Amino acid sequence: MKITNLQQCPSSAVSMDGAQGASRQVPIGKADGAPNFSIRVFTLEPGGHTPHHQHESEHLNFVLEGRGIVMEGETPRSVSAGDFVLVQPHEKHQYRNTGDGPLVFMCMVPSRYE
Amino acid sequence: MKITNLQQCPSSAVSMDGAQGASRQVPIGKADGAPNFSIRVFTLEPGGHTPHHQHESEHLNFVLEGRGIVMEGETPRSVSAGDFVLVQPHEKHQYRNTGDGPLVFMCMVPSRYE
Repeated sequence: MKITNLQQCPSSAVSMDGAQGASRQVPIGKADGAPNFSIRVFTLEPGGHTPHHQHESEHLNFVLEGRGIVMEGETPRSVSAGDFVLVQPHEKHQYRNTGDGPLVFMCMVPSRYE
Repeated sequence: MKITNLQQCPSSAVSMDGAQGASRQVPIGKADGAPNFSIRVFTLEPGGHTPHHQHESEHLNFVLEGRGIVMEGETPRSVSAGDFVLVQPHEKHQYRNTGDGPLVFMCMVPSRYE
């Protein structure tokens, strides 16, 4: 059993093309022996965003803090703390921080996409 | 894409043997077409608990609200809002609400264990 929190998890900048002002933590992942799924946590600075892209893995998201939009294809949808989001495989998507503080969200993916 | 929150998700009592004062919501699951993993949310009343059991699926947990203990085998470990917990397959475990308010936590499992 592993118990942790975000204060204990190292953070690294996201260097992926199309990402800006984004950092990443992995409170539960392959390194912990999680057999199927990983929990990543992304923090976007105000104005920051993830890539506007699509891929074969789904995302199971939960917004921990802040507010912003999720692009569903080309359509912006508002999200804020407490929202759950399912991004289907091959669905084009992007998170954008439109608020004044950090936008922090969990992003669960199959282990091979950690 | 599905966006929801706990206020929009129906809640049902947990009738599993060994559970007490527990209810369950499924913000993202098989009914939404989530291909691999489901997010269940359990709410334990003060004094409530989940079964003290083990099973072949892992749990990826995140505590949303409240405080309590997680039994790691026969050893109690404290948890509170903001904690992530990985329960490994076949690891005996139990959540107990030892606080004065609700203990609310996400519990992600492979779809077939939803």
